[in-house]
Amino acid sequence: MARTEALRAAVEQHIDRWNTALPDTGLYAPMAYLMRLPAKRIRPVALLLAHELFGGDHQQVLDEALAIEVFHNFTLMHDDIMDAAPLRRGMPTVHLHWNVNTAILSGDAMLVKAHQLMGRDPRAAARFEQRAIEVCEGQQLDMEFEQRGDVTLADYNEMIRLKTAVLLAGAMEIGALLAGASDADVERIGQFGEHLGLAFQLRDDLLDAFGDPDKVGKQVGGDLRAGKKTWLLLRGLAVDDGTIRDALLVTPDQRDVPRMIAALERSGARADAEAEVARLDQQALAALDSIAVPEERKQHLRALAAQLMVRVH
Amino acid sequence: MARTEALRAAVEQHIDRWNTALPDTGLYAPMAYLMRLPAKRIRPVALLLAHELFGGDHQQVLDEALAIEVFHNFTLMHDDIMDAAPLRRGMPTVHLHWNVNTAILSGDAMLVKAHQLMGRDPRAAARFEQRAIEVCEGQQLDMEFEQRGDVTLADYNEMIRLKTAVLLAGAMEIGALLAGASDADVERIGQFGEHLGLAFQLRDDLLDAFGDPDKVGKQVGGDLRAGKKTWLLLRGLAVDDGTIRDALLVTPDQRDVPRMIAALERSGARADAEAEVARLDQQALAALDSIAVPEERKQHLRALAAQLMVRVH
Repeated sequence: MARTEALRAAVEQHIDRWNTALPDTGLYAPMAYLMRLPAKRIRPVALLLAHELFGGDHQQVLDEALAIEVFHNFTLMHDDIMDAAPLRRGMPTVHLHWNVNTAILSGDAMLVKAHQLMGRDPRAAARFEQRAIEVCEGQQLDMEFEQRGDVTLADYNEMIRLKTAVLLAGAMEIGALLAGASDADVERIGQFGEHLGLAFQLRDDLLDAFGDPDKVGKQVGGDLRAGKKTWLLLRGLAVDDGTIRDALLVTPDQRDVPRMIAALERSGARADAEAEVARLDQQALAALDSIAVPEERKQHLRALAAQLMVRVH
Repeated sequence: MARTEALRAAVEQHIDRWNTALPDTGLYAPMAYLMRLPAKRIRPVALLLAHELFGGDHQQVLDEALAIEVFHNFTLMHDDIMDAAPLRRGMPTVHLHWNVNTAILSGDAMLVKAHQLMGRDPRAAARFEQRAIEVCEGQQLDMEFEQRGDVTLADYNEMIRLKTAVLLAGAMEIGALLAGASDADVERIGQFGEHLGLAFQLRDDLLDAFGDPDKVGKQVGGDLRAGKKTWLLLRGLAVDDGTIRDALLVTPDQRDVPRMIAALERSGARADAEAEVARLDQQALAALDSIAVPEERKQHLRALAAQLMVRVH
């Protein structure tokens, strides 16, 4: 964990330097505003850890780690417009603090900046571009799913894979390939990141419905109240049981969160989700196991994985 | 001109292939829709001509030419949202034909695709990213100018340089450097493109106010009626003459286009703009002259320049 914290500090320092060098005007002020909001920096830290796993020096790839974080923040800036979100990490979103046009344009410029920061190695750039396109595809699916009544669990899994898991996978792949890892090892570390990312999101769904409000730090059932098509809801609706469907398939004003949560429990959705999380965690760790580097080098990535696996908020 | 037309056909064919390979759904349908609208393809053709100027084979850089056109269309998709434009080349804009969120996201994905297409040569990619950032900065200035009452002619020139001229410059620079041109020659061809771009835009301002409606194909004075801060208007307002300022500085409902045009003529703005266009054209041609390649190789770029210089619509 100490190594993870040291790398997180290095990432923060690099972000600070970048923010400070940006002009304080126009397109750039919203970038720095968003990048300065407190965040866990999981993706850039994961890139650095993957780089060290294969013997690389993290100082050499700070720009690439920053590129991943800038890209992630670009997606937040644009997603917040699309979702009409008023707050991001407790602060007004860019499109509210400035305006929608500035948020569109500043996000565009962040996307170009991310490419600029990633630009030195053609293989890293190509992998980044592939992952970036997939993230856009995932967000598009997410928007389409809101309008569709026929979303399956498999559809949802693919959406989450694209929208959130592939960026963590991409960060680790890039860290690895810049350290000279073999193609096979790049794929393995990508699988580690992708399964961790999928498990993380599913754990998030579970916490929303079944978490301890004191530990989660917010009221439970927010996703259910908002009518979000989560893994749990889709799994609950897949059960051929009228009383369960009646509890879950209601109009917005009829949503009774405790009744919905009880129905999810009864449907087996909770138990299934917990089994799925455990399965994804195992798949992630198996991918890490399959990489032929000395075990002591893997401890920091195991610590990062453990941190993601026990999260309560 | 024949060469220009042959290269334009090659660009169209390459765009067609790209469009046809895109999925017909989600993010991709709006890209193909916009890319299929009839367009002059000046920037990709300029890239190919600059490549041939330095002895390159245009077949080798069709992807980079396409990258420039995809990037240009990304800017159109997002600019149309910001300007709330209903039509683009006579057809409904993407944000109206689909919706704003799809236009944001499809534009984002086009920007990534443009980087992907440009990605093979690190110098070309770096030049592209620099130019792309400048285009974003220009659009931001354009939006800010709408809210500001203190825009000078120098501010306006810089905004136009960034928003429109640098992309034509960048296309030619990339074409040149991929053909192995020296750094000095890359700068020279960039200057050629930048001055051509500036002259093109200023000629556009002039045509809007003083063009022959039959040749221009639309009513004159559209910019004046819309209250746009064009070069002509800013130049007219810079004259210390009460009657001229009275004609130009009016509330939207008081805009009298013939009176505004007469005031611009009387202020010397028209004569100044025409002199400025001639000066920019000369600077463009001087930059081309300064490149040490056989004169016959330059004829096609001269033809492209002449085409841009005599345009009436």
